[in-house]
Amino acid sequence: MAYEHVLVDVEDDLGIVTLNRPARRNALSEAVIRELTAAFEQLAAEAPVRAIVLAANGPVFSAGHDLSEVASRDLDGMRRLLGASANLMRTMQALPQPVVACVHAIATAGGCQLVASADLAVAADVARFATPGGREGWFCITPMIPVQRLLPPKRALEMLFTGDEIDAATALAWGLVNRVVPADRVRDEAKALARRASRGSFGAKALGKRMFYETVELPLEPAYEKAVEAMASSSLTDDAREWIRAFLDKRPAVYSKKR
Amino acid sequence: MAYEHVLVDVEDDLGIVTLNRPARRNALSEAVIRELTAAFEQLAAEAPVRAIVLAANGPVFSAGHDLSEVASRDLDGMRRLLGASANLMRTMQALPQPVVACVHAIATAGGCQLVASADLAVAADVARFATPGGREGWFCITPMIPVQRLLPPKRALEMLFTGDEIDAATALAWGLVNRVVPADRVRDEAKALARRASRGSFGAKALGKRMFYETVELPLEPAYEKAVEAMASSSLTDDAREWIRAFLDKRPAVYSKKR
Amino acid sequence: MAYEHVLVDVEDDLGIVTLNRPARRNALSEAVIRELTAAFEQLAAEAPVRAIVLAANGPVFSAGHDLSEVASRDLDGMRRLLGASANLMRTMQALPQPVVACVHAIATAGGCQLVASADLAVAADVARFATPGGREGWFCITPMIPVQRLLPPKRALEMLFTGDEIDAATALAWGLVNRVVPADRVRDEAKALARRASRGSFGAKALGKRMFYETVELPLEPAYEKAVEAMASSSLTDDAREWIRAFLDKRPAVYSKKR
Repeated sequence: MAYEHVLVDVEDDLGIVTLNRPARRNALSEAVIRELTAAFEQLAAEAPVRAIVLAANGPVFSAGHDLSEVASRDLDGMRRLLGASANLMRTMQALPQPVVACVHAIATAGGCQLVASADLAVAADVARFATPGGREGWFCITPMIPVQRLLPPKRALEMLFTGDEIDAATALAWGLVNRVVPADRVRDEAKALARRASRGSFGAKALGKRMFYETVELPLEPAYEKAVEAMASSSLTDDAREWIRAFLDKRPAVYSKKR
Repeated sequence: MAYEHVLVDVEDDLGIVTLNRPARRNALSEAVIRELTAAFEQLAAEAPVRAIVLAANGPVFSAGHDLSEVASRDLDGMRRLLGASANLMRTMQALPQPVVACVHAIATAGGCQLVASADLAVAADVARFATPGGREGWFCITPMIPVQRLLPPKRALEMLFTGDEIDAATALAWGLVNRVVPADRVRDEAKALARRASRGSFGAKALGKRMFYETVELPLEPAYEKAVEAMASSSLTDDAREWIRAFLDKRPAVYSKKR
Repeated sequence: MAYEHVLVDVEDDLGIVTLNRPARRNALSEAVIRELTAAFEQLAAEAPVRAIVLAANGPVFSAGHDLSEVASRDLDGMRRLLGASANLMRTMQALPQPVVACVHAIATAGGCQLVASADLAVAADVARFATPGGREGWFCITPMIPVQRLLPPKRALEMLFTGDEIDAATALAWGLVNRVVPADRVRDEAKALARRASRGSFGAKALGKRMFYETVELPLEPAYEKAVEAMASSSLTDDAREWIRAFLDKRPAVYSKKR
């Protein structure tokens, strides 16, 4: 696939998707959303890619939906746009690889939703976050979905109701991001976290990620049922057996190739 | 309705409900609970009211249920009292306006439940919070319901099991309140937060508040289904259209009246 | 029951279970898991025991499952082992008494799961926590179940994906433990917290604990239904009546014996 709005790179075993529509503040038009989804799926299928970083070029990480596009849409068109956006967010969580957002600048509305939907996030100290629809005419209802699952409820409501920006330190304290670093180091730190988060067996990590999102929504009893079965059966995989043998032999484990 | 235990005021576009039974430490008798519920519903229906502040007079914010009333109740009477209380808490979340608790002093048991059930809360630095039933003879089971949805589980259990008071700074760290300010500024800060939280389109905010409480309890997939539909249809409202036009025209938006 | 791997003590009204397999880093073999479960159940039934502390001897709190045992198990054997482990974790939450983990040293994988499954936890400043399977060949899927219910999601994913150790201060900030104290005070502080958490009516606390775990998984409406009924009926118990009379008489309450 040829991309117009995103850059797709592979550096060793890292995939990197970069929003590259800086003149439009990386606004998430339906075309951008479909390219991002395709880029994630392409990288996830590439042989060496063990983790994916989502970055952006220009003065803004992403300003969210493209209001000039929204202005011309009818109800069905809006359902298609927002459905594609929700599908992008779920795709990030459905990939077998960890996805790390690298937030170098302000991320608002759907841009904030992208950060919240990544498994992990590293922010520059100058980054800011907002869901501004709440103080205007169109509440950020879809961006709210992942934000309300990360933030303590009264913090989420404050952000959503006021529409005010929060700074990177606040985003860290409220659980929206994992790290805050000086702006000139944010890309290196995001890559470093992606590498730390993708060590070991590819298959074990992929199963763990899938199980995390499946069990986090379940009550304790069915969550344990699912987890016990997955952990029992995965104990018999080649990579689990290799870990156990290596541990008992006091030697480093050597895992199978990615797939 | 004439009120005996609460004061009901409107200041510009803010509604203010004030617990005013200081000699009884603002204890939540069934009469007080029914007056609070009626006061919220009355203010929510008043023309200019865009947000509601819940405050209290006297040395205590609220000491919770009125034990002298509980002492004389049978099982059906207790069901009626606690059902009315639960209905009050749900009413605060069901109102279209943001509700901000203004906690100038100690709030215990049902009083702590009121703070937890407000959308947002501002506390004085001298305020304290407790669920004391846990170290006595009647566990704070109904106050626990909103507290357990705000606090990290081990913090909630510590508060509920020990019955110990936590101070305002701890309440802020644990997510029970949004702000802590000097006591002489708590009312102004609560009003200021209520105003910040109620800017923009009244209808968009009301839809956003309703969607928050409906989707926060759902798994990701049905939450997104509901959110996509609500965000798509609300993109066609007059206020959403006005925001988009104003944004594209680089002018301030002018929203429709409250209703 | 005679125990080989755990010590079981009663100090006044505290039960103390101590993992005592230091040469094997307190690894959780099926035998250890079954002894821990039996020890909890035995102490819970003992007359004076109002709270239980879970501690450990040796340089490690617990290293989790015993990989030498896992190495020799087939699928059914693994299901039995992990099912027994999940049953142990649920038992800690099903006991009527508060359970306080006393974590003097590193707790990894199933050891971290034990800490997360206790109602409360006190850690030494030198304690550390990790779910290392995520950077090896066998993801910590069952330890994830309680960890994902305590930590904000992006913190949980960072811990699970990287497998890195977090220190005690981080565990406190992320909600995995309630207190961090100097190592030479950790046992006294765990006992003190267990005593503070078990004051008052034994029956009221037991009902409160059960209601906490039942309602925390429910949406608001059915949670309130259950809580209203439990709080109404418990208002008629001897201990609730005694509290109310004592409160109104301004005298200390005297509660019934444990059962």
